[in-house]
Amino acid sequence: MPVLVMKFGGTSVADLARIENVARKVLREVDRGFDVIVIVSAMSGKTNELVGWVESTSKLYDAPEYDAVTSSGENVTAGLMALRLQEIGVPARSWQGWQVPINTTSAHGSARFISIPRENIDAKFAEGFKVAVVAGFQGVSAEGRITTLGRGGSDTTAVAFAAAFGAVRCDIYTDVDGVYTTDPRITSKARKLDRIAYEEMLELASLGAKVLQTRSVELAMRYKVRLRVLSSFEDSDDTSGTLVCDEDEIMESKVVSGVAHSRDEAKLTLVRVEDRPGIAAAIFGPLADAGVNVDMIVQNISDLEHPADKRAYTDMTFSCPTNQVLRAQKAMEDARSAGLFAFANLVVDSDVAKISVVGIGMRSHAGVAAKMFSALAAENVNIKVIATSEIKISVLIDRKYMELAVQALHDAFDLDKVG
Amino acid sequence: MPVLVMKFGGTSVADLARIENVARKVLREVDRGFDVIVIVSAMSGKTNELVGWVESTSKLYDAPEYDAVTSSGENVTAGLMALRLQEIGVPARSWQGWQVPINTTSAHGSARFISIPRENIDAKFAEGFKVAVVAGFQGVSAEGRITTLGRGGSDTTAVAFAAAFGAVRCDIYTDVDGVYTTDPRITSKARKLDRIAYEEMLELASLGAKVLQTRSVELAMRYKVRLRVLSSFEDSDDTSGTLVCDEDEIMESKVVSGVAHSRDEAKLTLVRVEDRPGIAAAIFGPLADAGVNVDMIVQNISDLEHPADKRAYTDMTFSCPTNQVLRAQKAMEDARSAGLFAFANLVVDSDVAKISVVGIGMRSHAGVAAKMFSALAAENVNIKVIATSEIKISVLIDRKYMELAVQALHDAFDLDKVG
Repeated sequence: MPVLVMKFGGTSVADLARIENVARKVLREVDRGFDVIVIVSAMSGKTNELVGWVESTSKLYDAPEYDAVTSSGENVTAGLMALRLQEIGVPARSWQGWQVPINTTSAHGSARFISIPRENIDAKFAEGFKVAVVAGFQGVSAEGRITTLGRGGSDTTAVAFAAAFGAVRCDIYTDVDGVYTTDPRITSKARKLDRIAYEEMLELASLGAKVLQTRSVELAMRYKVRLRVLSSFEDSDDTSGTLVCDEDEIMESKVVSGVAHSRDEAKLTLVRVEDRPGIAAAIFGPLADAGVNVDMIVQNISDLEHPADKRAYTDMTFSCPTNQVLRAQKAMEDARSAGLFAFANLVVDSDVAKISVVGIGMRSHAGVAAKMFSALAAENVNIKVIATSEIKISVLIDRKYMELAVQALHDAFDLDKVG
Repeated sequence: MPVLVMKFGGTSVADLARIENVARKVLREVDRGFDVIVIVSAMSGKTNELVGWVESTSKLYDAPEYDAVTSSGENVTAGLMALRLQEIGVPARSWQGWQVPINTTSAHGSARFISIPRENIDAKFAEGFKVAVVAGFQGVSAEGRITTLGRGGSDTTAVAFAAAFGAVRCDIYTDVDGVYTTDPRITSKARKLDRIAYEEMLELASLGAKVLQTRSVELAMRYKVRLRVLSSFEDSDDTSGTLVCDEDEIMESKVVSGVAHSRDEAKLTLVRVEDRPGIAAAIFGPLADAGVNVDMIVQNISDLEHPADKRAYTDMTFSCPTNQVLRAQKAMEDARSAGLFAFANLVVDSDVAKISVVGIGMRSHAGVAAKMFSALAAENVNIKVIATSEIKISVLIDRKYMELAVQALHDAFDLDKVG
């Protein structure tokens, strides 16, 4: 039998009525001839409740115990889902991580998959079971302790099962009906994409389009798992939602597929850093050690041989998530105190937004950057920092222009039009 | 290191403050030099919530899934307790049933222990862990599925661990401070017992003194586990609570140790049953098949050779839990329809109470029954049915006299006085 993986997030299984709704969706796929692996999250709110208890109980919170407690919400949903499926006539059973087993590293709270042996679940399919309901977000370490993959780990669980079982597709049911050209709250012209390439989805996921976890898309790309995002609250068929797939499967080939935005970014500038070989390493080493996720980096041209002391200086600008700014500042002050390098001062601008255009078509099309910059210029939006990758161009701008910029770029690249 | 088992029920771990309170009690025993095995229940209300979800999800409810869901409450408490212990400096870790492993039969919902291997927990004690926090009420079957022992199973888990680890004692912390000579709500003269023999506790447990589950007492008696019942809400020391132990350990030897009562009993009388060999088997076989727990049985003297038909008739009276009366009635009507035996009618009296006096001293003392009956007669309480065992005398009386009868018997046997 072909295997289909279906994943349902917390809001999709928030109460018994929604679990019933999900069971009907699973039944439909069973009726179509699939052996189905269902990955479930905890009922929404449950994991937060458990995390709250852990944090109130222990400031240290020992990671293995944290995992033992917080993984229980998924186990409850898995059991209830199996029961509901049985009730509507579908032979189903639940699987906790250690029962499969979902073997992971011992990095509690952020464990990685080592292997997902098929034997146990395949044996049940062979016995006539049609559905394996698997608790998402969890696994078991070599020491026999429960591990968790970290928040959003259920998407990753789903993709890993799809890879392990050679599934025809991995359907991620969520509270949105697909991936859009941009945030529909910013422009009503936003259009749902039928298909999007892994690489594009990766850029969008990491840019704050919160539909899929980055890690699950990476895994899907590596194992060529066809991933579909669709709504659990609407009727659906094979053409619903957005298919995240290899670019070979994508017929329409726009240069730009989407415009992403993020408010959660701050710009930091080290003013008057001595410009010498190794200075970048001296700056970004301590930032990495402090756990700061540096995103964009721009080094301005040097003041060659400053008149005062005949040495060369430069300004170094970078961006990081706003909640890491304090950590970044401390790392820079500490590095200066330790004599690693000198700078005049550190200027922080938290009032910025990052706008990105993403598209695999950029690889073969010149002029995308120019078109982007002129669209922003036409609206008098000043660009503070630019960074580019093979399929993405990002800019930092004043936050107040964010919506305007997204709308202008959406129009400029004709994203409201199909094909 | 000597091992101590401590068990905490749902009200003792109902919230984080109570979990903190329990952790302090465990720390005190660790400081005294014990390796401690802590058995925890789910936070009160949690298991009922889970059971409610299961029952709403599926009328059939598949027992393995029922167990997978309902066992999760204990796992949460075990993790939180381990975290709290770590926080106050006690090396502790949590154990779910499959991790120990607690091997049980596959009788989901009412599984029985097969074995509790010591290796894994002993290895952690050897590494320097001082406390193993074990999720009560659960185990794992040979098929690798989670099993539960049924309600109250946490007491049984505690006793089983005490037996497996040769614990010096098994302390059952609950919301009462010990076992009383009778229900203190019925008479203020009720006195807490310092010690009680296993056999007595068994009779009291099965008679509705809800302090300990019958099964846990049976297990304690079989493996000579010294069991102590005490309050988790009071400060305690080695002399707190009531010790349930072998009768050899009991110095004070009263003839009667306690007076138990139960409202949850109905009296049924089959009127005018033909009195012939095998009639009792014909009646009680179908009742057993229907799952009716028959308690007391009384057969009245026969009407030898009834004038009408020259055959012998008798009345057969028995008692069973009130919630099984309908089932008992149906079993009797069905048996009559099937021609197994005939009777004139079935009279049900639900308005009764069972009163019992219990004491190992009865074995060697005559006159206990006579004293009991005359104490009841002095209060004009009519006795409807009498049943006796080696260490117990039970009577059914009108329910309205229950309190009066308990008070009279408590006085008659001087239970308010020590020794």
